[in-house]
Amino acid sequence: MPATIPDRHTIEQAHARIRPFIHRTPVMTSRSLDAATGASLFFKCENLQRVGAFKMRGAANAVLSLTNAQRSNGVATHSSGNHAQALAATAQQVGIRAYIVMPDNAPQVKLNAVRGYGAEVTLCAATMQAREETLTQLVAQTGAAVVHPYNDYRVIAGQATAAKELLEDVADLDIIITPVGGGGLLSGTALITHYLSPQATVVAGEPEGADDAWRSLQAGELLPGGQPNTIADGLLAALGSKNFAIIKHYVQHIYTVSDAEIVSAMRLIWERMKIVVEPSAAVTLAAILKNKQQFRGRRVGNIVSGGNVDVAQLPF
Amino acid sequence: MPATIPDRHTIEQAHARIRPFIHRTPVMTSRSLDAATGASLFFKCENLQRVGAFKMRGAANAVLSLTNAQRSNGVATHSSGNHAQALAATAQQVGIRAYIVMPDNAPQVKLNAVRGYGAEVTLCAATMQAREETLTQLVAQTGAAVVHPYNDYRVIAGQATAAKELLEDVADLDIIITPVGGGGLLSGTALITHYLSPQATVVAGEPEGADDAWRSLQAGELLPGGQPNTIADGLLAALGSKNFAIIKHYVQHIYTVSDAEIVSAMRLIWERMKIVVEPSAAVTLAAILKNKQQFRGRRVGNIVSGGNVDVAQLPF
Repeated sequence: MPATIPDRHTIEQAHARIRPFIHRTPVMTSRSLDAATGASLFFKCENLQRVGAFKMRGAANAVLSLTNAQRSNGVATHSSGNHAQALAATAQQVGIRAYIVMPDNAPQVKLNAVRGYGAEVTLCAATMQAREETLTQLVAQTGAAVVHPYNDYRVIAGQATAAKELLEDVADLDIIITPVGGGGLLSGTALITHYLSPQATVVAGEPEGADDAWRSLQAGELLPGGQPNTIADGLLAALGSKNFAIIKHYVQHIYTVSDAEIVSAMRLIWERMKIVVEPSAAVTLAAILKNKQQFRGRRVGNIVSGGNVDVAQLPF
Repeated sequence: MPATIPDRHTIEQAHARIRPFIHRTPVMTSRSLDAATGASLFFKCENLQRVGAFKMRGAANAVLSLTNAQRSNGVATHSSGNHAQALAATAQQVGIRAYIVMPDNAPQVKLNAVRGYGAEVTLCAATMQAREETLTQLVAQTGAAVVHPYNDYRVIAGQATAAKELLEDVADLDIIITPVGGGGLLSGTALITHYLSPQATVVAGEPEGADDAWRSLQAGELLPGGQPNTIADGLLAALGSKNFAIIKHYVQHIYTVSDAEIVSAMRLIWERMKIVVEPSAAVTLAAILKNKQQFRGRRVGNIVSGGNVDVAQLPF
């Protein structure tokens, strides 16, 4: 595992490595959302990525970075979300085992999706302690290599490739905005933007009910996640230490938004852009709509993180 | 107005004429829907077209084909759906008036959308007779040029450009499938496929509750629409005479599907492809899923007609 922050070359290598495993997702625009915000918005559609989220990039880079010996006993993680699917899908494609620890209150649809990629699911109590203990036990039994969902430089380098593609496809962006939960996408985006397009600023949107990144950036030190509570279920994770170290240097601002603002922005994207996005992916547009004066007249890259949502259980 | 069926050159001219007014929509693929059907599916995403539907193509071609004198008094139609928005949007862009007759039971959201493009809306009773009388009266008062939603060769030539782009972007299609309501999209698709890719067959999906195209094709003559009843509200219109004459010659088969099959296919597209499609646009995938043996192993172009649906009133 690389012990240092990924440099430009490392991210370029990651991109070359994962390219056969990912989609180069489209960049979409919307006249009506440009009119609604006063900005020129470029939506990097990672909801159209494999497994429906950018997580495919980081998981693929982590798995493909393992030596054959490291791979031989499979990979493991605990996750109830998109990282689990991404790790399972990559492992299946590479032909190794994936062991996923999931809380026993995870929705059946997510269990089925992970099992659909051939992963071995171990259920445990729905506490972080139970999840970590179960994972430790699994690794002791199997020798599988653990892939953390975000606090891992290989994962960060993988997530950076979404912004890399966006910067290659759209010239002269003034601002790039991503959601922030654990910080994998935001830290990767901040790094590659610093390397390729240092004149652009990187900012983030974060739910008010899970605002540890905003609080940490204000305080200048990593603060605990507390008891997050937001509809943006992809952003519940506590900010990672490796992620924070990068964010602290390279991210200019974090905008917090309420759940009502997230739902309203999510509905706007569905209605105007005709794409399915999950609540976590609408946090960025919610931040732009709430802070129009900061974005007006600017060319803004917006990384749409994912589209995994139960369409029969919508908040509108 | 051209008095004859559009030839290849006429459709190419239409495409050149409307190009600044439309999006070249993307062609999407889906591993999981390929796996579910056994076919190689290429989705031409007209839900991502301006105003959210392919109707933009035909309306734009009709308006842009008018002489300056014909345009000078504006354009008019009666429609409660996507054609109204498309005609209003084109008229606004060209800088002429649009008069739209809408039934007084049309959803507020559709009224607002049409008015949002600057059109003048006249409400009338929700019967075809009232709509036609109101339109006749409006035209007598204003001198506006009427643009029929489908039974018009200019509109047919415009709708043909969706399949033209698909055939340019994807080589060696075996089958192209579209939904059929009034028949504008299907007749245009059949013509351009005959001109550009005559080895490919053109088929359609139609709701069982609005199966006049299927019945007409079986009978070999245009039969009346009857009392259509289907969730696919974009396909309620009765098949047009100009459209049927083309369909009779160039369309190989029409597959009918139930509303339950439409809803199930619609949900699959939302969940697997992360795009918002309206029920009418899911009729084609429903037909493929219902008749797998006809599509298995084939390269199938599927024209996804639109994405205008009330996301707060979903059928699942």
